[in-house]
Amino acid sequence: MNAPVKPEELEVGYDIPALPGMDESEIQTPALVLDLDALERNIRKMGDYARAHGMRHRVHGKMHKSVDIAKLQQRLGGAVGVCCQKVSEAEVFVRGGIKDVLVSNQVRDPAKIDRLARLPKLGADIIVCVDDLDNVAELSQAAQKHGTTLGVFVEIDCGAGRCGVTTTEDVVTIARAVQAAPGLTFKGIQAYQGAMQHLERYEDRKAKLDAAIAQVKDAVEGLKAEGIACELVSGGGTGSYYFESNSGVYNELQCGSYAFMDADYGRILDKDGKRIDQGEWENAFFILTQVMSHAKPDRAICDAGLKAQSVDSGLPVVHGRDDVKYVKCSDEHGVIEDPQGVLKVGDKLKLVPGHCDPTANVHDWYVGVRGGKVEAVWPVSARGKAF
Amino acid sequence: MNAPVKPEELEVGYDIPALPGMDESEIQTPALVLDLDALERNIRKMGDYARAHGMRHRVHGKMHKSVDIAKLQQRLGGAVGVCCQKVSEAEVFVRGGIKDVLVSNQVRDPAKIDRLARLPKLGADIIVCVDDLDNVAELSQAAQKHGTTLGVFVEIDCGAGRCGVTTTEDVVTIARAVQAAPGLTFKGIQAYQGAMQHLERYEDRKAKLDAAIAQVKDAVEGLKAEGIACELVSGGGTGSYYFESNSGVYNELQCGSYAFMDADYGRILDKDGKRIDQGEWENAFFILTQVMSHAKPDRAICDAGLKAQSVDSGLPVVHGRDDVKYVKCSDEHGVIEDPQGVLKVGDKLKLVPGHCDPTANVHDWYVGVRGGKVEAVWPVSARGKAF
Repeated sequence: MNAPVKPEELEVGYDIPALPGMDESEIQTPALVLDLDALERNIRKMGDYARAHGMRHRVHGKMHKSVDIAKLQQRLGGAVGVCCQKVSEAEVFVRGGIKDVLVSNQVRDPAKIDRLARLPKLGADIIVCVDDLDNVAELSQAAQKHGTTLGVFVEIDCGAGRCGVTTTEDVVTIARAVQAAPGLTFKGIQAYQGAMQHLERYEDRKAKLDAAIAQVKDAVEGLKAEGIACELVSGGGTGSYYFESNSGVYNELQCGSYAFMDADYGRILDKDGKRIDQGEWENAFFILTQVMSHAKPDRAICDAGLKAQSVDSGLPVVHGRDDVKYVKCSDEHGVIEDPQGVLKVGDKLKLVPGHCDPTANVHDWYVGVRGGKVEAVWPVSARGKAF
Repeated sequence: MNAPVKPEELEVGYDIPALPGMDESEIQTPALVLDLDALERNIRKMGDYARAHGMRHRVHGKMHKSVDIAKLQQRLGGAVGVCCQKVSEAEVFVRGGIKDVLVSNQVRDPAKIDRLARLPKLGADIIVCVDDLDNVAELSQAAQKHGTTLGVFVEIDCGAGRCGVTTTEDVVTIARAVQAAPGLTFKGIQAYQGAMQHLERYEDRKAKLDAAIAQVKDAVEGLKAEGIACELVSGGGTGSYYFESNSGVYNELQCGSYAFMDADYGRILDKDGKRIDQGEWENAFFILTQVMSHAKPDRAICDAGLKAQSVDSGLPVVHGRDDVKYVKCSDEHGVIEDPQGVLKVGDKLKLVPGHCDPTANVHDWYVGVRGGKVEAVWPVSARGKAF
């Protein structure tokens, strides 16, 4: 192997915030930093939980969009494969070697259906969600054209208020059509209650999930009455997986955020009233930022703004610090209240972003750190794959 | 030239939402779509304005992050070069052939300063902002190391409340230090009043800019009294450029959003009380999205969520439609109120995003459309270049 080119030997800069082997202090900011020890502990913990409860765990790849992390979740956490939301994401995961991929979403554009129907040729099992009879015919036609088989979940809207049918009658009608359609295999039910995941109180989340479980049970029984078996009943997120795991009807989880944690998820409470980022899961995912100006005594300006994160679920939290606070965000700047003037230009801070998924999606690289050293630099493989 | 590979000949999909020559209806969604006629009219109009007012126009490349659009602004709008906020952006613009590049921001990390000081070797004039004496020494040292010259603006905080000094005394002190520092050339003043750009009323914006202009005039006179000439006084945005242009003290504009327009800027009013997106500028920048589910009669689900835009400045607006409304956004979905049930699965809508800069930054491609055909597919060249 040739010696790697050192940054100072390049004509200009290099398009990456860090290189493996660097000291943590040399990472250029803003950058996504993963605490690899914490990440691995989160992954193993959820893997152990799923195994102990007899659940398959199909990790949500839309969260991290990383082939490397998905493979880590398979290796350390026993994940059976991934789910993702877009055909372009599925293409990345399949090319990257993930063999069991669910597009947990509807695919309606003819060009996208065509791309989806080609994916099994690369040696992957592909499942897609439907909530409309016309889509069954579209998918069947494409699968036949390419000589492939697509698995199909009928999606139930069990409270998220987005895609999915709401009655057992519709579930049965669509499942029957799938069974009759050449090139398609009915695989089961998609029932993710997204809207409840971020409710603060455990009891409030439980009430929503109890209703979802009842709805899903009714659908599964309705299908059974028609002689249609559900191989998989899939759903569950970081704020609900224990409900699905103990439901007696779900057999597959789709958790994503547990691996990274973020400020918005971190605030929800477990059944003992404790924040889930203070025991259940560890913060493993940070935006590393640097103070770049401190021209006013009580406010520091850092280099992580809207181009380094999504603030849809609130501003980031400065990790491990009570003395300073991220209070304002513009395109390339963050304003940090520093009432005692403890920060200096050049200081680095770890921010826990409000929402991990869309924050990962603005970055090109994960910088994995262990023991003060950069150990891994992983591409955000499916970044920007939104179509 | 070989015939281009057609999408259907590829093993899986292709990593681009459209190809030149396609019909507009074939663009895969969500995608950033540029109305090239409108874009060109906006660019020519601002170019004509700047020329008529004797102003240089250094277009803000942080908005579009596109070498192709920056060159269009040079060719059609007489732009003198670009400004941008990060060294990694400057690297992209310089490599792309832009010869006059201002980093309108502080650069403090030693690795970034080193990268910045190398850029003039590629044949570009580079200017950077400072607000701290220590930074003058750091920049001088790096420029000497590389045998280059860096231009320097002293940044004045004229109301944005971020970086920049606030007194004429500080401006003079730093300018003097720059003049004395080997490898640096004092080029003038950076004074961008960012906080006022989005105030709705013209009079409110004027009041803020009047104060900024007074502050900048005082600084320029203070420098003059010390025998220090300001070659350039730079600032101005889409909500203020007429104030700077008529100030008698600014001679360089830094407008960005005028070229694209967005929903948040569009709502501000001109001096006659008219929205600036209804006469002054045209919407040239859209997120093309498709209805992917309509399982409930009064709400359509579209495929553009948080991974296709930034909602920091509010939700997107459905362009040209009063009958439907984008009301909710999750990671990969948008909920569209459709009270009369006029939308069908497969329908495409053009969304005007709340905030153009961070929305462009989540996409890899601009799809330029004219007369119903895809004419250009341009990379978002400096996407993700945040460090």
